Amino acid sequence: MLILQTVDELKKWVRETKKAGETIGLVPTMGFLHEGHLSLVEKAKSENDRVVMSIFVNPAQFGPNEDFDRYPRDLDRDRQLAEGAGTDAIFVPSVEEMYPRESQIKITAGAQADVLCGAKRPGHFDGVLKVVTKLFHLTEADMAYFGQKDAQQLAIIESLVADFNFPMAIRRGDTVREEDGLAKSSRNVYLSAAERDEAPHLKKALEMGKNLFLQGQDPIAPMTDYLTKNTSGKIDYIELLDYPTLTADIQNDAILALAVQFEKARLIDNIIFNPKEN
Amino acid sequence: MLILQTVDELKKWVRETKKAGETIGLVPTMGFLHEGHLSLVEKAKSENDRVVMSIFVNPAQFGPNEDFDRYPRDLDRDRQLAEGAGTDAIFVPSVEEMYPRESQIKITAGAQADVLCGAKRPGHFDGVLKVVTKLFHLTEADMAYFGQKDAQQLAIIESLVADFNFPMAIRRGDTVREEDGLAKSSRNVYLSAAERDEAPHLKKALEMGKNLFLQGQDPIAPMTDYLTKNTSGKIDYIELLDYPTLTADIQNDAILALAVQFEKARLIDNIIFNPKEN
Repeated sequence: MLILQTVDELKKWVRETKKAGETIGLVPTMGFLHEGHLSLVEKAKSENDRVVMSIFVNPAQFGPNEDFDRYPRDLDRDRQLAEGAGTDAIFVPSVEEMYPRESQIKITAGAQADVLCGAKRPGHFDGVLKVVTKLFHLTEADMAYFGQKDAQQLAIIESLVADFNFPMAIRRGDTVREEDGLAKSSRNVYLSAAERDEAPHLKKALEMGKNLFLQGQDPIAPMTDYLTKNTSGKIDYIELLDYPTLTADIQNDAILALAVQFEKARLIDNIIFNPKEN
Repeated sequence: MLILQTVDELKKWVRETKKAGETIGLVPTMGFLHEGHLSLVEKAKSENDRVVMSIFVNPAQFGPNEDFDRYPRDLDRDRQLAEGAGTDAIFVPSVEEMYPRESQIKITAGAQADVLCGAKRPGHFDGVLKVVTKLFHLTEADMAYFGQKDAQQLAIIESLVADFNFPMAIRRGDTVREEDGLAKSSRNVYLSAAERDEAPHLKKALEMGKNLFLQGQDPIAPMTDYLTKNTSGKIDYIELLDYPTLTADIQNDAILALAVQFEKARLIDNIIFNPKEN
């Protein structure tokens, strides 16, 4: 597996790969890999000749009071996991390499960023759009892979690609969960033992809410009660919206999503379902 | 010469061209072609295997009180001129084809758009960024060509490509002029006979201003006097800035630029020079 640290190294690899007529799948990550990331690599391998994974904790998507500095990092472990999953190349740039100068041009998310995490993390999705636009251009990927756990991110990136005709496809990966239902996340490592025991209630609350909604009831208040009773975390939001428009007007798929702030980790989870097919 | 009207037709042509290992030069235009556009085609032909020209009067870059409706159009003539210049394909989409739905994501210019035309045409360069981003992605061009006459546009598009690592190069074409010095422009057709006689004074004012500046004098007031005396148009701006940063702090190249509003046509012109080399 190649380890590419500079833009020039990456571009050289891309040029050679394209010249050989091979397609490129991109798995963008912030590292501290878990099975969720590795399942995206697996999917990318099955659909492309070559797979490049980026590992970059992107400062542009963290707010001033968020966890950029203490976001978990372990490049040695990531390297082994990426290689074990069959990644062809990892791109591990420095912040200076990705952002050598202040940007003149801004890319900003629209109304899709006014709900869920976007409402709680101003500028977060603009920072995501900034880094993925750069990565899409640098890797010239044919397909890029994102997990459904970050469903709002996925929806906004799909808008980016559609609005501006990026010559590539966005591919969705299912949320990968622990045996007890907790969605895998790099931030799970910051849960205390007690919080880790409570965390599976997030997925249980989502399932309960979905069933209530399908029975014609409003799921938000019962889910709030359930999570308040069963976890020590502070509920950041529980919302039911159309997917992927993220408007209140549910047409086809619906997303039921929540965020809970534990002492050192803010966890998010969601389920997407079609009310008509249930 | 191929005439491509839909995104799908264009993408098919791009795919086949890339598959043949050929490079693509893009000349984006709003049609009503003149020698300025054709000199860009010539430059593109000398540096790429294939040349595609887009002809699209982009509503996103016109303000509500600007000349979108009466911007000159003549597709038959454009087709002949483009073909005569050796263009391989023209992309002539409808507005619906380029903008099938309202965009969720916005791209906005930074401080470079706060001066010159940007100060007078709010949102203009955001509309330019929107359409060129789409065209860059749709054509997968290796190089895209823009004339220096629209120097602010050129500077902002260079920022776009650098800030977001577009896998392409922006190439500058010199301003092409009539024998009497008037910069070629599609909008020149809207000058009255008397205005057309006055119009060469724009270039003369720029040359005069440059010489004054190189002699250590402020060129703005004398240029204003000169244009007021010699043309019937209303001066929109005369500015001297660093190029391409478009800040007041001239480091290397300087741009001296002006805009004059005539009865039915607003003309712009500029010269770029290095004060240290003069």
